[in-house]
Amino acid sequence: MPKRVSPPELTLRQRPKGTTLTRWLYDELRGAIADGRLRAGTRLPASRDFAQHYKLSRGTVVTVFEQLEIEGFLRTKVGAGTWVSNTAERPLARRQTFDASRKLPSPMGGLKRDGPAHPFRCYEPAVDQFPRHIWARLASRRMRGASADFLSERDAQGHKPLRDALANYLAVSRGVKCSADQIVITSGVQQALDLVARALLKRGDSIWMEDPGYFGAVTAFRNAGVNVVPVPVDEQGISVTSGRKRARNAKAAYLTPAHQFPLGVMMPAERRLAILDWAREAGAFLIEDDYDGEYRFEGSPAPCLQSLDRNDSVILMGTFNKILFSSLRVGYIVLPPALLDPVLAFRFGLDQNSVALEQGVLCDFIVEGHLGRYVRRTRELYGARLAVLQEEIRRRLGGLLEVPPIQAGLSTVAYLRNGVASRRAESAAASYGVETMAIDRFRIERKDVEGLLLGFAAFDERQIRKAAEKLEAALTGLQARRETA
Amino acid sequence: MPKRVSPPELTLRQRPKGTTLTRWLYDELRGAIADGRLRAGTRLPASRDFAQHYKLSRGTVVTVFEQLEIEGFLRTKVGAGTWVSNTAERPLARRQTFDASRKLPSPMGGLKRDGPAHPFRCYEPAVDQFPRHIWARLASRRMRGASADFLSERDAQGHKPLRDALANYLAVSRGVKCSADQIVITSGVQQALDLVARALLKRGDSIWMEDPGYFGAVTAFRNAGVNVVPVPVDEQGISVTSGRKRARNAKAAYLTPAHQFPLGVMMPAERRLAILDWAREAGAFLIEDDYDGEYRFEGSPAPCLQSLDRNDSVILMGTFNKILFSSLRVGYIVLPPALLDPVLAFRFGLDQNSVALEQGVLCDFIVEGHLGRYVRRTRELYGARLAVLQEEIRRRLGGLLEVPPIQAGLSTVAYLRNGVASRRAESAAASYGVETMAIDRFRIERKDVEGLLLGFAAFDERQIRKAAEKLEAALTGLQARRETA
Repeated sequence: MPKRVSPPELTLRQRPKGTTLTRWLYDELRGAIADGRLRAGTRLPASRDFAQHYKLSRGTVVTVFEQLEIEGFLRTKVGAGTWVSNTAERPLARRQTFDASRKLPSPMGGLKRDGPAHPFRCYEPAVDQFPRHIWARLASRRMRGASADFLSERDAQGHKPLRDALANYLAVSRGVKCSADQIVITSGVQQALDLVARALLKRGDSIWMEDPGYFGAVTAFRNAGVNVVPVPVDEQGISVTSGRKRARNAKAAYLTPAHQFPLGVMMPAERRLAILDWAREAGAFLIEDDYDGEYRFEGSPAPCLQSLDRNDSVILMGTFNKILFSSLRVGYIVLPPALLDPVLAFRFGLDQNSVALEQGVLCDFIVEGHLGRYVRRTRELYGARLAVLQEEIRRRLGGLLEVPPIQAGLSTVAYLRNGVASRRAESAAASYGVETMAIDRFRIERKDVEGLLLGFAAFDERQIRKAAEKLEAALTGLQARRETA
Repeated sequence: MPKRVSPPELTLRQRPKGTTLTRWLYDELRGAIADGRLRAGTRLPASRDFAQHYKLSRGTVVTVFEQLEIEGFLRTKVGAGTWVSNTAERPLARRQTFDASRKLPSPMGGLKRDGPAHPFRCYEPAVDQFPRHIWARLASRRMRGASADFLSERDAQGHKPLRDALANYLAVSRGVKCSADQIVITSGVQQALDLVARALLKRGDSIWMEDPGYFGAVTAFRNAGVNVVPVPVDEQGISVTSGRKRARNAKAAYLTPAHQFPLGVMMPAERRLAILDWAREAGAFLIEDDYDGEYRFEGSPAPCLQSLDRNDSVILMGTFNKILFSSLRVGYIVLPPALLDPVLAFRFGLDQNSVALEQGVLCDFIVEGHLGRYVRRTRELYGARLAVLQEEIRRRLGGLLEVPPIQAGLSTVAYLRNGVASRRAESAAASYGVETMAIDRFRIERKDVEGLLLGFAAFDERQIRKAAEKLEAALTGLQARRETA
């Protein structure tokens, strides 16, 4: 019979509600070892005695002792009993409480991005218009009927039926010519940029970047070690002449031809052909970010640059996060066939593959015609809202702000015509509760553009008129101070 | 009155079903310009005559002419009419059809990953056990009641209620001590690794990597330009002694302490404390990948290494893709407070934030007790399935395969004891329809471990017994060939 030891002076705390006996005993003993109440070398009573002493079943005690032994906190030797091992006498982690101050990339410093959107927060779609009940029904149906294949899907390229639906949708709505096999589903344009930059560009390669332009693209390229060459945007989009002067042999260019971000100009055919010419000569590829190409309020939407490309130069990317709702997280890349393999091979290391349920639901949403109806309905709505904003600005802010006659998107630039700097105007607006984005947040090198970006899609006529009135007060005040200065 | 021109010899193709008149006319004219049927300088009839000639409303014609003018394909001058502009005379893109051959990272070359899982496919949970109807109900409820905030959520850290639920779940189930503010939601361990490697390590930094180990981690580190230092795994996990010899001043180490991937050993307390000591001395951090820590079939699950850490050295990461279903795509990182800001700042450039609906549904699934019940139920099931596999291998494959007495996870290693190389055994098994993974797929430098990884969680007793019989035939045949050679 093993030598009996006397029980240690060990108080076990009362068992919390909902904790099993095993879990409780384990935590108590492990805590006691970790904080030194049970020191190295201390012998424990035999499991039988321990169980009796603490009114537990012997099975519970044996299970816990074995577990602690597996983890190295206890040692057992037949005939010698159980004792606390030498290497385990350390206090448990002391945890700090922590108040996180979350960071946005520096171009967004000081901007409000959470909480209810107030006019004119940029790039918000009208989520109150979104048919939640349809999405809920489709999600429930998809999940109830989910096959083992759907739940285990690991296609790094994305759910095949969604890619089929998307190829068709992009052909009809954006003039894109592609097969489902050229499409890679991502969580949005940002992931598409990160993936393409890392899979297809080498560190030190140069890329033409629209200036002003989308800072998320700049971030993705810089994160991949790519040399970002700012190229000015004029009234036709990125200047190919400037680009050729600055970096004739760049490996790529980043473009927003449908609706330049943030200035809103549409790239006309002449410029499109000029940049395709450069791409062919330089052997470069063109990243076409079609982030809100669906929203054009006059005429048909301009087809994608991709539809004019006959040299497999264009990589098209787009997103449903701006059309439907931003927390959806489904976007896509349309790749020239030769670029597919390197992108897919890289994708595994990034995040393996995308969420299945969202892909399935979006697929049904497209195939059953909901997307088409929703885009048509919101296109009309957004067009009317833009008209109200343009009218209000003309009427109230004539000499101060100038909105170009662009009929597209979810946001519009408004150029400052009173000599006030963008950031000062943004702050003044914010002090009146009006959310805007200063254009200089998007500039890389340029200092010659002063303006505000104003979102209109998510706000009704009354909200727009009210916010325009506040904006008038904010900017008129600024001008007055300037004149008296 | 403007000069009238005669209509060009232009045949318009029949309008396809479902295409609007505007879209059809636009496509026809643009196609004709692009393929040269309408050449530069060709004058078009006045819109009125054009409309009459083709039986269209004049409004349709005007809209299309204006659109083509905006895009630069047409030019109009009052008094001179409309003509095809000079810069637009190029053929449309000729698209190739394409048959994509998708790539997996090279360590997975030749492995089946899609289609129905056959025994013993690795790391598959039993998706047939998953309560789809509960998930469907929660998804529908979340979406029907979705607030504008939920649809617009852009918290790069993840849905706050999910982080609260997760902090609680991890405390109870894995001994983790953290607040919701230390958690970042990702799409899984792979994205967590990519994010942490890029945000916290510099190019050229060294990291200890378990050898054999998870190739997805090697990929993530190498993609970030980090120098991967292979450190051998022994019966206690990664060898701290070897690590110190090979790279004493490494900046980090990658570990799977609960259940080493792929060998399955649990790191005992002694080794845990030794590696925490090294991390403190070196100022390094430890990446603890707790990929299937919930599944331990004897005793309580070993608490995370993170719970022993008192120097904020441990970055814990885990996933629900292995517990619930692989296409879910929700995982998490638990960060020491000081590392939160750089990780969040980097996350914007990666993919901005995670899918809201999955986060909301998972939150409800945890809070309403479904996760706890599901893990308990499958833990029992998987334990029983592992027991069947172990019994079958002992009985049928005694001298050929040896399964260590590990009671954890979704897959187990089986060491080859007949001198046959891992890949040859894997091929032989595959020729009998049995899916396995050769252990050498996971090695970095080592050549001294030969074995197969066998998944058991997704297969019932009958499937396991049947596949073990086939495996016996496959491996016995191999041994026989070797003996007669």
